[in-house]
Amino acid sequence: MNTVKVAILGGSGYTAVELIKILLRHPGAEITAVTSRQDEHIADLHPSLLGRLDIRSEPFDAEKLKAKGVQVAFGCLPHGTSMESIPPLLARGIRVVDLSADYRLRDVKVYEQWYKETHLDTANLAHAVYGLPEVYGDKINHANLIANPGCYPQTAILGLAPLVAKGLIELSGIVIDSKSGVSGGGRTPKMNFHFPECNESVSAYAVGTHRHTPEIEQALADIAGKPVSVIFTPHLMPMDRGILSTIYATPTRAVTEPELVELYKSHFAGKPFVRVRTNPPATKDTVHTNFLDVCVKVVRGKIVVIAAEDNLVRGASGVAVQNFNRMFGFDERTGLL
Amino acid sequence: MNTVKVAILGGSGYTAVELIKILLRHPGAEITAVTSRQDEHIADLHPSLLGRLDIRSEPFDAEKLKAKGVQVAFGCLPHGTSMESIPPLLARGIRVVDLSADYRLRDVKVYEQWYKETHLDTANLAHAVYGLPEVYGDKINHANLIANPGCYPQTAILGLAPLVAKGLIELSGIVIDSKSGVSGGGRTPKMNFHFPECNESVSAYAVGTHRHTPEIEQALADIAGKPVSVIFTPHLMPMDRGILSTIYATPTRAVTEPELVELYKSHFAGKPFVRVRTNPPATKDTVHTNFLDVCVKVVRGKIVVIAAEDNLVRGASGVAVQNFNRMFGFDERTGLL
Amino acid sequence: MNTVKVAILGGSGYTAVELIKILLRHPGAEITAVTSRQDEHIADLHPSLLGRLDIRSEPFDAEKLKAKGVQVAFGCLPHGTSMESIPPLLARGIRVVDLSADYRLRDVKVYEQWYKETHLDTANLAHAVYGLPEVYGDKINHANLIANPGCYPQTAILGLAPLVAKGLIELSGIVIDSKSGVSGGGRTPKMNFHFPECNESVSAYAVGTHRHTPEIEQALADIAGKPVSVIFTPHLMPMDRGILSTIYATPTRAVTEPELVELYKSHFAGKPFVRVRTNPPATKDTVHTNFLDVCVKVVRGKIVVIAAEDNLVRGASGVAVQNFNRMFGFDERTGLL
Amino acid sequence: MNTVKVAILGGSGYTAVELIKILLRHPGAEITAVTSRQDEHIADLHPSLLGRLDIRSEPFDAEKLKAKGVQVAFGCLPHGTSMESIPPLLARGIRVVDLSADYRLRDVKVYEQWYKETHLDTANLAHAVYGLPEVYGDKINHANLIANPGCYPQTAILGLAPLVAKGLIELSGIVIDSKSGVSGGGRTPKMNFHFPECNESVSAYAVGTHRHTPEIEQALADIAGKPVSVIFTPHLMPMDRGILSTIYATPTRAVTEPELVELYKSHFAGKPFVRVRTNPPATKDTVHTNFLDVCVKVVRGKIVVIAAEDNLVRGASGVAVQNFNRMFGFDERTGLL
Repeated sequence: MNTVKVAILGGSGYTAVELIKILLRHPGAEITAVTSRQDEHIADLHPSLLGRLDIRSEPFDAEKLKAKGVQVAFGCLPHGTSMESIPPLLARGIRVVDLSADYRLRDVKVYEQWYKETHLDTANLAHAVYGLPEVYGDKINHANLIANPGCYPQTAILGLAPLVAKGLIELSGIVIDSKSGVSGGGRTPKMNFHFPECNESVSAYAVGTHRHTPEIEQALADIAGKPVSVIFTPHLMPMDRGILSTIYATPTRAVTEPELVELYKSHFAGKPFVRVRTNPPATKDTVHTNFLDVCVKVVRGKIVVIAAEDNLVRGASGVAVQNFNRMFGFDERTGLL
Repeated sequence: MNTVKVAILGGSGYTAVELIKILLRHPGAEITAVTSRQDEHIADLHPSLLGRLDIRSEPFDAEKLKAKGVQVAFGCLPHGTSMESIPPLLARGIRVVDLSADYRLRDVKVYEQWYKETHLDTANLAHAVYGLPEVYGDKINHANLIANPGCYPQTAILGLAPLVAKGLIELSGIVIDSKSGVSGGGRTPKMNFHFPECNESVSAYAVGTHRHTPEIEQALADIAGKPVSVIFTPHLMPMDRGILSTIYATPTRAVTEPELVELYKSHFAGKPFVRVRTNPPATKDTVHTNFLDVCVKVVRGKIVVIAAEDNLVRGASGVAVQNFNRMFGFDERTGLL
Repeated sequence: MNTVKVAILGGSGYTAVELIKILLRHPGAEITAVTSRQDEHIADLHPSLLGRLDIRSEPFDAEKLKAKGVQVAFGCLPHGTSMESIPPLLARGIRVVDLSADYRLRDVKVYEQWYKETHLDTANLAHAVYGLPEVYGDKINHANLIANPGCYPQTAILGLAPLVAKGLIELSGIVIDSKSGVSGGGRTPKMNFHFPECNESVSAYAVGTHRHTPEIEQALADIAGKPVSVIFTPHLMPMDRGILSTIYATPTRAVTEPELVELYKSHFAGKPFVRVRTNPPATKDTVHTNFLDVCVKVVRGKIVVIAAEDNLVRGASGVAVQNFNRMFGFDERTGLL
Repeated sequence: MNTVKVAILGGSGYTAVELIKILLRHPGAEITAVTSRQDEHIADLHPSLLGRLDIRSEPFDAEKLKAKGVQVAFGCLPHGTSMESIPPLLARGIRVVDLSADYRLRDVKVYEQWYKETHLDTANLAHAVYGLPEVYGDKINHANLIANPGCYPQTAILGLAPLVAKGLIELSGIVIDSKSGVSGGGRTPKMNFHFPECNESVSAYAVGTHRHTPEIEQALADIAGKPVSVIFTPHLMPMDRGILSTIYATPTRAVTEPELVELYKSHFAGKPFVRVRTNPPATKDTVHTNFLDVCVKVVRGKIVVIAAEDNLVRGASGVAVQNFNRMFGFDERTGLL
């Protein structure tokens, strides 16, 4: 197996360390560079990496990465910063899997409305591919710029995909009630992620205003072929990692649970990372894996879908490697089982 | 202040110990007896009570409780058992606040459908009062038998009461997505409450089948004056205590958020234990108190209500003391602030 | 009961909110002022206080506090800042219970060595009383300035007091291995208290350098009448509150466990907040109370003492109110049971 | 690479599922059988394994395992049961890595004193090798029966090995204060592992009586060449996994910290799974890995060693695979990085 030289941009956060751990086990990837504002040994940034990766982080410099032979960069930078760093990489022929939100929304106006920032790289935005392999499949294989999907959106999109694809539900008023572990909020200390504030507590946040809303709607609209509108409420859970989304949809005709289970199984046949369960999944069944577990129920005439994943693996770094595998001709599962 | 002699039935669980802690601070209550199958010092059942209550638990015997002068019994027994113990108490003139579900559902057929048991005490059921003070108010004051409300239902009923009272929402298809700490499952060790199983995990359970469903619907129907139907999904959270319910309802006419906030504030004026917030509450804001916090939002044409409480205090033992206060002429807040 | 007018200095942290909750239940205290750099409603600083205390925080001004009739101030300021604020209060006849470390160490050189700061108020330091009621008893009653004890030291001092008082153990090389919840680190967000960093993890910190070391030694030396030297290792636990200290001491003569249990029981007879247990306590037995639980064992010739408390109540705000009770003639237990 | 056929005995617990996850990634192992009292699909026993291992558990039958070509069995049975199942395997030439305590203590009297059971297989006990690779090295390679070490003992033995090997500490009175996550208690629901009992709490247990005590002493005595005596106190922490041991030893001569750090580094040179750190490790740095992290400090003349590991990986299933690698000629790290 040939080896692909990889760079990780923004190496100090949780998605970066998760990526590194996955790539260290990947037989076809070689971590050539990690960038960060600090020049530090990676084991000082992430004590868990002591003895596992002997590399220092370096300031971002596209030319240097090119000189080192880097073929693909994983962007773990915040949105806004990401779209500043990526153009010089693409210009040098370095392919990019961007874990930020900068290239996810095809419509610049939608981006600017939700992110309150001017988009700085509409040229590359035009050919970015949304990196949800179960929906966008082979488009990913040949892309130079992958907009890696958000953590919440994957549970919502895959949880609803079979229903939307078949026109089985009303496309407005879909309720998505999501629960996430705290690592989803990043590694920068803030009051709402301070242990004694969020431990032993549950709360909703960004009610009606969370930026993953348009991302969910864009992908579902792609599947439906018409506009979709959702009510999305994220909640913070007192745990490190894991997302559970409970989704409520109104069927357009009478449906039975066995019929829907069959639909889900056939829809996801051949998709190695989606597991259809008959019992509601716990996030713990999926942590530290790239699996997204889904269960569909009928309750008093409504369809209730429950989808679970690890927000750092499936929700970010795992699916990034799944995209990487497709881009470089590896089996989709390489390094992820 | 005169002192009321109190018995606690079923002293080994979490609602019992919570009741004891509240009553020890109550200037008008004297804990005269605690019953349990074991004959043990209360501090062996509950190590936290060492040096705070010097009493031994005793087997249940209505005659002995009467002889000790017990005026009111708090029932902390499981449903099924509760309706066996309560008739002899009522027959002896001992008033009862029952924390089990046995007297909550007025329609015996509904009880038997959801609890899969024959009701053994329909005579007393006929005059039991559902002990939610903010809805049933003065009826509680003169009742001999209070059916103390369930933990989840209080968040749903009070969260929706202002809307239902005004006819502002559609009465079917209301979505109630609830998140609870593990103490709600009781003190008996079981696999799903085993620490390494439920810690660091979130899951839905009893999807479409939870027994609090008809209890929610009965109270909301009382307020509405017509039938109400809900989709209720409880979830287990990795924390000791606290319930957060996120409720999604469809307005019957266009509404604004400020209008609804005003409605909630006026509806709950004079209700000392309901706090209307403009920001979504965290369960932690309410733990170890009898407050139920509620916040109402409008999101894309839907009404989203978020209600939080401590499941053991407000959700069980605190509201039981609130009912006790009404029954014995104390200020509703006594011992609860 | 007459009412004492109370001010709380530094109202934004965890010890302040805990104090407020205790004092709201205290029949002899009236919270007259809360100071903070921000001018905010207390319920914005601490959402849990909504509807419980209707007061705005105000900038610290000794003259204004005097004008409001404040009789005692509880200092919840950081060390260093505390000794700047307290002299003008004492000068105006306002008594002080200081929860910071500024007045705990009688020897200025020891203070400056461990805290790396110049002491700014040696005049008041000279007559400050260390506020550990079980050791310093009546001295507290008449003091104008109480140095409220640290959270860790109370477990170590009370855990060892009976042994040291009787000369039963060697006074050097005592090992104190302490485990604390995260609230002990305060309310300012920092990387090591960021939820995903410290959740699901245990670590030692400040090994050999923690500032509570000389405080423990000073009090034990007072009891022993000669110098005491300890090896103190604090650890951070993934929980909100609670301290457990496991203490290892070498007896100066052969001892038996029953003999030591008797010694502990007689030593703490009449001390309402120390509970001697025969089984090792869990921190959970003590949370939200002012109890300090202690258990003594003999293991292979060593004495092992285990002491548990709530770091915010017994370890800070509860013992502060215990001291307040002594200072103002209330029963020591008032507001604390 | 040739593939070794593996059986797992007692497939329903936490060490079994951890083993399966490791072995699924191991290029030289094939899971041929999993035994359990239940005949169930492995994904029903362990929902996380859905789609990862398609095998049913089967009742234990040595003859059937032999017929399937099983070359090595990992024993995940409780002690007592383990020594009943292992003789028929060894008799059929199947090598065994036993994760129970049955073959760890060479002296049958010591076993029977601590475990209160008669040893049933002294014949095989005589040639069992204690499977701590960093101490017993090549003896493991040729063994047919490995007594896989206990979770706590590994932190204590490796934490002290460099000091004991050099005769640098007194060999009696060594204090080992250990903190463990709850998964160490196994998967059977019990009151002390019931979530609302052990969450948000820390407690010591089995003070002076824990069965890992003689195991620690046996290995340290092997290193020292003379008897060793320890005071071992385990504590339960509110987290899933991880052990941190804080060890206090008295040096036999004056030592400096830099000198000891050098000693540790040279002692563990070439041992890929022991990481010597200069800052105290957090258990989180080691979770889900086979690393054991160690840090040595000098505090007021005492030596303080802190050692951390994942109790299920390094403490059980990971080191079992490390032993397996040695037994079957794989690089020690295979499947473990």
